[in-house]
Amino acid sequence: MAEETNPPAPTADKPVEPAADAGPSKKAAKKAEAKAKKEALKAQRAAERVAVASASNEPEEDPSKDYYGAATPALLTSFSPDAEDVSLKSINESHVGKKVVIRAWLQNTRMQGAKMAFVELREEGNWAIQGIVSATGDAKAEGDSTPVISKRMVKWVGAVNPESFVTVEATVEKPFAPVKSCRVTDFELHISKLFIVSAAPATLGMTLAAANRAVTNFSDEEVKPEEAAQEKEAEGGPPAASMLTHLDNIVMHKRSPVQQAIADIRVEAKHLFRSYLRDHGFKEFEPPCLIGAASEGGANVFAMPYFNQKAYLAQSPQFYKQFEIAGGRKRVFSIGPVFRAENSNTPRHMTEFTGLDMEMEIRKDYKEVLHMLEGVLLHIFRGIKEHCAAEVELIRSVYPSPELLLPEPGKEVRLTFAEAQKLLREEGPEEFRNVRDDEDMSTPQEKALGALVREKYKTDFFAVDKFPEAARPFYAKVDPASKPDEPVTNAFDMFLRGQEILSGGERIANPDELEARIRSKGVDPTSSGIKEYINVFREAGVPPHGGGGIGLDRVVAWYLALPSVHLAAYYPRTPKRLLP
Amino acid sequence: MAEETNPPAPTADKPVEPAADAGPSKKAAKKAEAKAKKEALKAQRAAERVAVASASNEPEEDPSKDYYGAATPALLTSFSPDAEDVSLKSINESHVGKKVVIRAWLQNTRMQGAKMAFVELREEGNWAIQGIVSATGDAKAEGDSTPVISKRMVKWVGAVNPESFVTVEATVEKPFAPVKSCRVTDFELHISKLFIVSAAPATLGMTLAAANRAVTNFSDEEVKPEEAAQEKEAEGGPPAASMLTHLDNIVMHKRSPVQQAIADIRVEAKHLFRSYLRDHGFKEFEPPCLIGAASEGGANVFAMPYFNQKAYLAQSPQFYKQFEIAGGRKRVFSIGPVFRAENSNTPRHMTEFTGLDMEMEIRKDYKEVLHMLEGVLLHIFRGIKEHCAAEVELIRSVYPSPELLLPEPGKEVRLTFAEAQKLLREEGPEEFRNVRDDEDMSTPQEKALGALVREKYKTDFFAVDKFPEAARPFYAKVDPASKPDEPVTNAFDMFLRGQEILSGGERIANPDELEARIRSKGVDPTSSGIKEYINVFREAGVPPHGGGGIGLDRVVAWYLALPSVHLAAYYPRTPKRLLP
Repeated sequence: MAEETNPPAPTADKPVEPAADAGPSKKAAKKAEAKAKKEALKAQRAAERVAVASASNEPEEDPSKDYYGAATPALLTSFSPDAEDVSLKSINESHVGKKVVIRAWLQNTRMQGAKMAFVELREEGNWAIQGIVSATGDAKAEGDSTPVISKRMVKWVGAVNPESFVTVEATVEKPFAPVKSCRVTDFELHISKLFIVSAAPATLGMTLAAANRAVTNFSDEEVKPEEAAQEKEAEGGPPAASMLTHLDNIVMHKRSPVQQAIADIRVEAKHLFRSYLRDHGFKEFEPPCLIGAASEGGANVFAMPYFNQKAYLAQSPQFYKQFEIAGGRKRVFSIGPVFRAENSNTPRHMTEFTGLDMEMEIRKDYKEVLHMLEGVLLHIFRGIKEHCAAEVELIRSVYPSPELLLPEPGKEVRLTFAEAQKLLREEGPEEFRNVRDDEDMSTPQEKALGALVREKYKTDFFAVDKFPEAARPFYAKVDPASKPDEPVTNAFDMFLRGQEILSGGERIANPDELEARIRSKGVDPTSSGIKEYINVFREAGVPPHGGGGIGLDRVVAWYLALPSVHLAAYYPRTPKRLLP
Repeated sequence: MAEETNPPAPTADKPVEPAADAGPSKKAAKKAEAKAKKEALKAQRAAERVAVASASNEPEEDPSKDYYGAATPALLTSFSPDAEDVSLKSINESHVGKKVVIRAWLQNTRMQGAKMAFVELREEGNWAIQGIVSATGDAKAEGDSTPVISKRMVKWVGAVNPESFVTVEATVEKPFAPVKSCRVTDFELHISKLFIVSAAPATLGMTLAAANRAVTNFSDEEVKPEEAAQEKEAEGGPPAASMLTHLDNIVMHKRSPVQQAIADIRVEAKHLFRSYLRDHGFKEFEPPCLIGAASEGGANVFAMPYFNQKAYLAQSPQFYKQFEIAGGRKRVFSIGPVFRAENSNTPRHMTEFTGLDMEMEIRKDYKEVLHMLEGVLLHIFRGIKEHCAAEVELIRSVYPSPELLLPEPGKEVRLTFAEAQKLLREEGPEEFRNVRDDEDMSTPQEKALGALVREKYKTDFFAVDKFPEAARPFYAKVDPASKPDEPVTNAFDMFLRGQEILSGGERIANPDELEARIRSKGVDPTSSGIKEYINVFREAGVPPHGGGGIGLDRVVAWYLALPSVHLAAYYPRTPKRLLP
């Protein structure tokens, strides 16, 4: 049975137009916040009305009383023995006309008159199905074993709080027309029993519909209630909650189909990284997070008391990847948290994020490393496109993004740093007329370069190689063929939609060369952490090697052109926030 | 060409008998330490002798001068263009008589007279092959393009420092008899060129042979040089280095075939955990390490300054696994570091280790969780046996262990806590005659139980279910069917060789029940971290769920019956040590 007047599901909301580049004004954000609160209030009142209605006196015995209510062990075992336990994804033609049991979140209810209620039951992600409970009459003839659905049961089902977890016995039927409001369009459930396993509150802190709208306000500052109230009457545009409201309502934030889809893509990206490298002979290892010295630069490191000494949190697994190569591994990778004690409150920064790292022996040329990293990133991008098309589409309906352009196999774009700077000087915006070959790129430069490369080479993904010596850390190998007065390194970055997602290159394997380079960078080679690092290369002969590091959160965020990396993280950590 | 007098490879050393349960005496450890140092000294002297010999004047031009020496770009491109780049693992019959190029660590050399040198070339793990360089005469006839191998070249190759990284051009040949000292027994390399890419020092801090012997001394206290000297003359038993010496020589520690094999098994265990759960519909996620409150108990937590507040390091992903379920996931798992600020200096403890965690919705009964965890562990154990037989055998030759007994499918052993205690009271050692059903087990009890179960049920792996309420944390669900005055939980542990490797069970999903339980455990439900945890279950209806956590380091260590969990970790973190 299809019902054209069924309320649209949260996922069917009109896509929200993204704000202009600089993000929405504070005023707009407050306005949106206020709208969201208004909506929640409205939902609460509706719930209260229903609750009052339910409590009205109906003294006579309900013939359906064992078919609904709070789940108890006795009720749960009352399911028909021939009802198959199914998941929504698995429902197919063979189930039509048969009894099934499902367990799901009830995401929406709607009464149609007094004798029929429509519900939407969601299992995971955006897998939802329409259910119908329809009164058969309150009286039951003696000896009749067909379950009776009373009007009272229908009314009760229609008043269940959204986001309660329920278990349902139902018969699978084909609707007269496809159900547009649910992902399962070709089947519907004719409900005979519905029990609440775990009840949601009458008022949700954030409705699923609100949770599924685009976040535009990523400010760390709380929206004050009085400001929100002022915006109450503001018109136009759907209400949107701020990122802070989302984090304060983490359960609803995570349940929203858009966040479920982002998480699914994150899972897939990680899996593609790992499976590609495993297939290429890489072995996984776990670098430590706790380290004894703030060895890589020293700035932006978290420090803590550790028994009788001090411990630091690793900013990258760099040293340990190299130790693995020195320790007899040919190719290694690691996936794990890295930490930056940087007081940057922007949508691009987090204090904890997931690093995807690899390191490999170089047989002949460091380009082997560049090609491997290019290969793994393209594998991730193409794999997401292939395996997660539905998720990408769902996310685009909330966060619109232009199609990602990728190079044809064999047509990968690799510029040298000097070529990239020349392109910027000659064809980039006015402000980059004088960029130099011996100075690192700024973020605006990177974005401009991304736009130029997209225009010229029709790709959103490319590599910039041979960074100048001054722009690279002490472990980067200088290209022996470069001019002594203009040294460049065998090191590169890779970019996605004009944003850096990877740094990599050849490392110095010779301890004397390493020590000299460390000294020339102004670092004391006898300092704690550095001394032990150099010594590793003195312990035994270490082959030439190189590798790279990728930020998983950024890969996901920029692939999807999300407005903030915080949307791609499970529990974003910022200087102001460690909860939940 | 086979050579029966070739020195045995490190892996071929006689297996060292493991010390008795309590570990070796301090004296024996020091004795072993001294022996190891003596051996290193001997190796150094030998190297010096060779160096002196090499430096002797031989003024006439060496006809082989372009075939050996330090690798330079020019020399490296002098390889025969038809020489195939191969890895040792891939060498097969089709290569016989053909030229190949390999890159490897030279792990051993030996002169046979003045005209022949034997080398062992190791690529990864214990993949080694025998190479021979044999003098063809110093003179070269005009117009003869066959490479000439001079006696000087042979002598030079025989004096290369062990653990230098070299690249070799050679012809693959069949030896007259299998080469016993190397893993590649059916082929050998007749070397025509050998270049050092990266030289090892004349004296290694620890030889590969020493690194490959069983560690018996895991004390955190340094062996003082004078004590070591006193032990210098001690006889009997092969020299063994302490764990501290291993960590001070991390490169050689890691290169040892036994550590390579342990690492390979660790990689496989992790992979088996992940692939099993993925195949069962679990989705990976990353819980944060930085948390805003020391929520799980509060003891043994690392704390640190975090901008204007305080941060803590997560002791487990428990809360976040549950948040994922509340947030709409059916089944999740995570693999990542967890931290314990426990000042325990034992071979069983580390301050940072790798947790394998999972959480799932319960459809009908928490036993679904128990069976899933039992399933994944058995999958790991059987998978290692199947895929890593060679590695297990190699490890056993250094750390002997009895065959691991596993239950037949369908015959898994699951005792209730009360049954386990009864078994201990009735059939266990005298000291456990009075163990109680309402008190947690001690480590000695666990070991005794493991021995009883092995004897009775012929398995080293089993589960103990229904732990008493007092022995479980506040989130453990009390079995509603248990007696109110003897409450037991739907929570269990799993054991391997008498040691706990997993804790799991059903969690409380109802916020009121959770709050009451937290209160009854003496914890303030309004305290920081706890309040937010309870609130998650108030945000929306959360289905019944359960899960478990496994220590990867312990699974690997106890599967292999290693004397310390530190041997299974890549970079063990202890209260006294954060380096390397």
